Amino acid sequence: MKFLPENDTIVALSSPLGKGAIAVVRASGRQCLAIVNPLLKKKLAPADARRALFNEFYSSSPARIIDQVVTTYFREPASYTGEDLVEISCHCNPLIINRIIEALVQSGARVAEPGEFTFRAFMNGKMDLSQAEAVAEIINARTRQSLAQSIRHLEGKFSERVHEIKNDILTYLSLLEINLDFSDEGIEVLPPEVLRERITQTVRRVEQLLHSYDYGRLLQEGIKLVILGKPNVGKSSLLNVLVERERAIVSEIPGTTRDYIEASLEIDGLAVQAVDTAGIRQTGDAVEAIGVERALALLPSADIALCLFESHRPPGPDDEVLVEIVREHREEVKFVLVLNKADLGVDPAAEKALEPLALPLVHISARTRRGVDDLKKAIKKQLFEEESLESEEIVVTGARHKAALERTREALLNALGAVEQRSTEEIIAVDIRLALDRLGEITGETTSEDVLNHIFANFCIGK
Amino acid sequence: MKFLPENDTIVALSSPLGKGAIAVVRASGRQCLAIVNPLLKKKLAPADARRALFNEFYSSSPARIIDQVVTTYFREPASYTGEDLVEISCHCNPLIINRIIEALVQSGARVAEPGEFTFRAFMNGKMDLSQAEAVAEIINARTRQSLAQSIRHLEGKFSERVHEIKNDILTYLSLLEINLDFSDEGIEVLPPEVLRERITQTVRRVEQLLHSYDYGRLLQEGIKLVILGKPNVGKSSLLNVLVERERAIVSEIPGTTRDYIEASLEIDGLAVQAVDTAGIRQTGDAVEAIGVERALALLPSADIALCLFESHRPPGPDDEVLVEIVREHREEVKFVLVLNKADLGVDPAAEKALEPLALPLVHISARTRRGVDDLKKAIKKQLFEEESLESEEIVVTGARHKAALERTREALLNALGAVEQRSTEEIIAVDIRLALDRLGEITGETTSEDVLNHIFANFCIGK
Repeated sequence: MKFLPENDTIVALSSPLGKGAIAVVRASGRQCLAIVNPLLKKKLAPADARRALFNEFYSSSPARIIDQVVTTYFREPASYTGEDLVEISCHCNPLIINRIIEALVQSGARVAEPGEFTFRAFMNGKMDLSQAEAVAEIINARTRQSLAQSIRHLEGKFSERVHEIKNDILTYLSLLEINLDFSDEGIEVLPPEVLRERITQTVRRVEQLLHSYDYGRLLQEGIKLVILGKPNVGKSSLLNVLVERERAIVSEIPGTTRDYIEASLEIDGLAVQAVDTAGIRQTGDAVEAIGVERALALLPSADIALCLFESHRPPGPDDEVLVEIVREHREEVKFVLVLNKADLGVDPAAEKALEPLALPLVHISARTRRGVDDLKKAIKKQLFEEESLESEEIVVTGARHKAALERTREALLNALGAVEQRSTEEIIAVDIRLALDRLGEITGETTSEDVLNHIFANFCIGK
Repeated sequence: MKFLPENDTIVALSSPLGKGAIAVVRASGRQCLAIVNPLLKKKLAPADARRALFNEFYSSSPARIIDQVVTTYFREPASYTGEDLVEISCHCNPLIINRIIEALVQSGARVAEPGEFTFRAFMNGKMDLSQAEAVAEIINARTRQSLAQSIRHLEGKFSERVHEIKNDILTYLSLLEINLDFSDEGIEVLPPEVLRERITQTVRRVEQLLHSYDYGRLLQEGIKLVILGKPNVGKSSLLNVLVERERAIVSEIPGTTRDYIEASLEIDGLAVQAVDTAGIRQTGDAVEAIGVERALALLPSADIALCLFESHRPPGPDDEVLVEIVREHREEVKFVLVLNKADLGVDPAAEKALEPLALPLVHISARTRRGVDDLKKAIKKQLFEEESLESEEIVVTGARHKAALERTREALLNALGAVEQRSTEEIIAVDIRLALDRLGEITGETTSEDVLNHIFANFCIGK
């Protein structure tokens, strides 16, 4: 295991490197006090646990003061790592930080690997694997929604859900094993129809979680939204309205082409990367349309595309190009039709011409901002379909969790197949145990070292 | 005063912004608990003072969890600012940090001005002005020596020295005032010759401190060292030897000319910015010398210049150009003559030719590293002259302190003049009181608001 030996005392800067007033260096390990105390003016003792002490930190030899610091000793197991842990708040100067870490290393500590503090918390049972992953998620979260979701994971809400499912499975697995023991005697504790019903219920719960993954992924990674439409249909105005309302920053992408504008915004707590494309239109008598290629290049990576038309008049030839694009790509991308310029009037012919597409359609006025909230609702509905995911719901955000849940479902479906084929209880039990193992990967009970290494290598140092 | 009102509770991120595991937000003020507590799961009370509590931080409305945090309450006056202060350690994500600060502001706190925490520490008597300045010095120190010096300032060692001088002055000022009271009765408590002797002693102590300023400034700002010499005399080798021995980083300055190389190194704890110039030489029959202009352009800003010649043979025509430069600039810049390539032999004619310059001269071999330590000693000696400033000495590092000391000396010399001219005791006392005031500017007892604003405006936010 990469992080071994665990008897070492590890040390790292836990606050960011940079310009600031204070920095926090943490040391954790069973020998922590023995290593830190020789370097402190006031020695830390169990009686001082959790007390912030004004202190002086010295270099080991020669013993010169490095800085005036505040030290806090967290006694095991009541610390982040579950081991003895000392937090040293010093003045934020790279020289001081280096000298403190240097002195601790001279005194017997070792510089921590990225994620090693959290890894120890996991190994010492302070949190399970999905909570440990939530720590990294929290640090990297980009919107309030994804942050809230990660905090819920850290609080163990997702783990609780997984444990509930596990307990379910354990109940009927144990009954099944009683069946096994008594099979010779013809006693049946768990009739097949009951077992089938119970497994089906579990599959449904697993699928419920799996279902939340698309939403979770969008929470975590953000939504890529593309705005399409002929020139002057109001694409930039719409982008500005969306952005302005959320006070995000509009910025042109630096580069040579400058043929599209990208902006970051938030729609109800979802991070949205919106791209305003060049206008789509037919040129002269040629069927070739300017901007089409660029729009087509953006579509495959988009989560949703807004197609702008005009409210106050029927679609023209340029609009037809866009309608054609929608027809050709409606299987790959989610579309919302937007009829802009509703402030100039609403011509029923405009809406009628788009009816055959059978796609959500919203009238708006980017100028007066009318209908923009409806548009947002339509975007969310189209992305997440009929589900109205409440922000308080538990949501699967990690691809690793999704894969484990899928593999759990697979094993459960195999068990279900075995039940229906009247297989022996031994065979059914094997599949159910496999489902349990796969569920255990989420919380780290049955996770391989490689996976652990991979997870913690993605952490920053000091966490 | 810019920082008023002081009854406000101020809040700021005290750790740097950036990628890290934890961030520290601090709030300070008399109403601190009333503002912070509504946002915390576990409310802080005087009984918890200095205890690090695992806690949850909520937004104000709606009350949603923002992050799992660790809170530490420092009860006034036992805090950095001398007021009630709460430290909130949260996960290091800009979103979390902003939401926490936002919630505190909604709850009644105000975002702190740069340096406002330290300003409050000063106003509440937790540190004097020179100690407050030391905080900024510590954060910005670039070498171990300057860091050590700043820590001594923070510990109040410099303030102690200033107070000693002040007490000196106070003793004879009070005696002088007794003289004043009894002057009608012809009683002389403090004879003029004694007073003159005492003032002279004080002037000497002030000058001693002033004397350390050059050293202090170099500690703080670093030394600019220029290496001059003809092509292939070993300038780059010398730079490499100096750098390599100190394991500093050599880097070419990016730019268009690339006609000199700059490297950062440390000589005995002094930060040195060394510049290796292009070779100086005569070209053809013209007296024009390539590299001379560049060298001349660098000289005015240099603290010291090393002039390289060869040990094993007498100076040639190219060397003569350099000798001429030294002759012309010896009043402005400090020079050390370096005879390199001592490994190829030492020709007495080389040293003899340079004797008329009457400058420190060291034989070295950049190739074998022989003599490099002697060169460093010569550099330090030339920079600081005969003084051997010990690293434990108190050193004046700030220009503001130097100015205050100079003005103190000026007032004392005026007093001395008055004593010698047998002026009345009233007149002498005026000058001595002025000296006291000027000394008080260092510790902040008699410092104007403008000066205070200027000092604290140079701090970073959160300190």
